[in-house]
Amino acid sequence: MTHIASQQNPRLKALRRLHAKRERERSGTFIVEGEDLVAAAQAAGREPLEGYRLAGSGLGGAGFHEVERDALSHVSALGSGTRVLAVYEQRWLAAPQGPLCVYLHGVGDPGNVGTIVRAAHAFGASCVALGPHCADPHSPKAVRASMGAIFSVPVARARGVADLPGERLALDAHAAEVLRGPMAEIAHELTLLIGSEREGLPAEVLGACARRARIAIEGDSLNAAMAATVALYEMTRRPSRVPAS
Amino acid sequence: MTHIASQQNPRLKALRRLHAKRERERSGTFIVEGEDLVAAAQAAGREPLEGYRLAGSGLGGAGFHEVERDALSHVSALGSGTRVLAVYEQRWLAAPQGPLCVYLHGVGDPGNVGTIVRAAHAFGASCVALGPHCADPHSPKAVRASMGAIFSVPVARARGVADLPGERLALDAHAAEVLRGPMAEIAHELTLLIGSEREGLPAEVLGACARRARIAIEGDSLNAAMAATVALYEMTRRPSRVPAS
Repeated sequence: MTHIASQQNPRLKALRRLHAKRERERSGTFIVEGEDLVAAAQAAGREPLEGYRLAGSGLGGAGFHEVERDALSHVSALGSGTRVLAVYEQRWLAAPQGPLCVYLHGVGDPGNVGTIVRAAHAFGASCVALGPHCADPHSPKAVRASMGAIFSVPVARARGVADLPGERLALDAHAAEVLRGPMAEIAHELTLLIGSEREGLPAEVLGACARRARIAIEGDSLNAAMAATVALYEMTRRPSRVPAS
Repeated sequence: MTHIASQQNPRLKALRRLHAKRERERSGTFIVEGEDLVAAAQAAGREPLEGYRLAGSGLGGAGFHEVERDALSHVSALGSGTRVLAVYEQRWLAAPQGPLCVYLHGVGDPGNVGTIVRAAHAFGASCVALGPHCADPHSPKAVRASMGAIFSVPVARARGVADLPGERLALDAHAAEVLRGPMAEIAHELTLLIGSEREGLPAEVLGACARRARIAIEGDSLNAAMAATVALYEMTRRPSRVPAS
């Protein structure tokens, strides 16, 4: 444990480099900011590689470095007020896994990717698989939007649709079929495929899906995170529906 | 129509003041940025009170003022790159209205409020009612998150639960009952009540609701926007469910 007062401290400089996706990929690590997220990591059984806390705050774990306020806020990616941050190992599955996988294609907004990781956790999906042109789920904004679910939901890279487990069900605003769960009535293993808000899934991906369905809406559209949340909700409904009293 | 090159132009100064909620409330107006949102206003039949476009861009309407790039980006609340912005009248209902009203209590994040307005539009809700400690639905971030739905979904202020139409159904993570729609099986007129992510609805609001229900999730929680989206989806399901083939 060290006491750090200078923004020029080599450890802090190395931390700041983790704001860049390239450095996160090179190192296989990522930063988490804030007490809530560090606690979420701990609750998920994940130990930090290193940690930093506001000097004298007593936050974080025993080995956390003590950092003066100005130096600490200089490292934050999310603005002032961060009192603790820590570095964790990225964990990727070797391949997307079922039984309920969510595949994202061209979902470029980190807030949406993080929210989808959170929805995957809430509804018990087995994996979030990332295709081309997706935001990094380990970016500060995505981690924050996931509210720590990034520590619980397995993520994987998908090089192509063939990597995806089970039956493929594409969310497609132009589909004739309305999305209907639960998943148990459709397949034992399933991947939900979700595209970008503006363009949806590309034709070659849609063409590789056994089913396409749309969410029944009256007006306009949903963003990728809202669509994924609704689809996961629908897929995880209980098979036998109890009518409302 | 005027040509504006200076950041000190009085019109631009007045525009910048609209970034503050107090000035939006005083004037009863709000700013919208970007081609998509100005187009959404037009599609909803809403005419701007005044408009500004990047000089020479040809964007916006006939009467839009021409503004040089630096002066225009200085007015933007959302960062650089805005090429058109316009001011619109805020429209508020005199009171929340049914048949399907969404009431928010303590939803302080403008992105969540805007996303809920968007969900209300997508699922055909009749009104979004705002209780205490909610973000302003006319703030730049909320307007952007609504993707223009703010021009289509009626909004209202609610001074108390007694203002809300129809049967009151509270989303409550601790409820015994699982949320089940469709609304037609519950009530002819309904208000869904949604609280803050951290604290939920206060006890006095819960106590004034005929029903409480939770969204069936496995892990952790949903944010207010995700919960509202799922609840609106559930409430607008078709009454007679067709099993998946």
